[in-house]
Amino acid sequence: MTERPMSADEAETAARMFKALGDPVRLRLFSAVASHEGGEACVCDISDVGVSQPTVSHHLKKLKEAGLLTSERRGTWVYYRVEPAVLAAMGRLLVGSSAGALT
Amino acid sequence: MTERPMSADEAETAARMFKALGDPVRLRLFSAVASHEGGEACVCDISDVGVSQPTVSHHLKKLKEAGLLTSERRGTWVYYRVEPAVLAAMGRLLVGSSAGALT
Repeated sequence: MTERPMSADEAETAARMFKALGDPVRLRLFSAVASHEGGEACVCDISDVGVSQPTVSHHLKKLKEAGLLTSERRGTWVYYRVEPAVLAAMGRLLVGSSAGALT
Repeated sequence: MTERPMSADEAETAARMFKALGDPVRLRLFSAVASHEGGEACVCDISDVGVSQPTVSHHLKKLKEAGLLTSERRGTWVYYRVEPAVLAAMGRLLVGSSAGALT
């Protein structure tokens, strides 16, 4: 990112991910999944963000659609986990920008 | 972030930054500043994103308000640069999440 500006296509994909994290409740739910034991959680594991279970489900689906979480149904529940490769790429993008700014 | 879920206050601040990057045009402008020589740019340096100069100015102001850019007026132009500490923190947050998911 510090080498050249992003293309329109790259920006479309990355902006969709950043936008998904641009809501405080959604970001806390993302954080709850990431910090849960084993890096995965179902709606049944998340109760302390102060929103209803249908709202939790809605936000987790949005995070999945943005490519930030993957999901797997096991019995009654859908389990979500963070998508490591995508997050690492987003992180590098930001860290790379900050490193570039220091040079 | 992998140690414990984010608090409501932490999520408010971080979500504001992610939201600011959640627009493809704004993300490209951010990228244009980060990749410009010396890590800083004024509106006069940015012409290839396909939006008008007032639109560029508007988006750069929004990025500044979110804490992602700092600015300094020199003569006619306001120069923007990326805020390295903030970006590094956001990057670590994402990379930390991805590392947690791999353990």
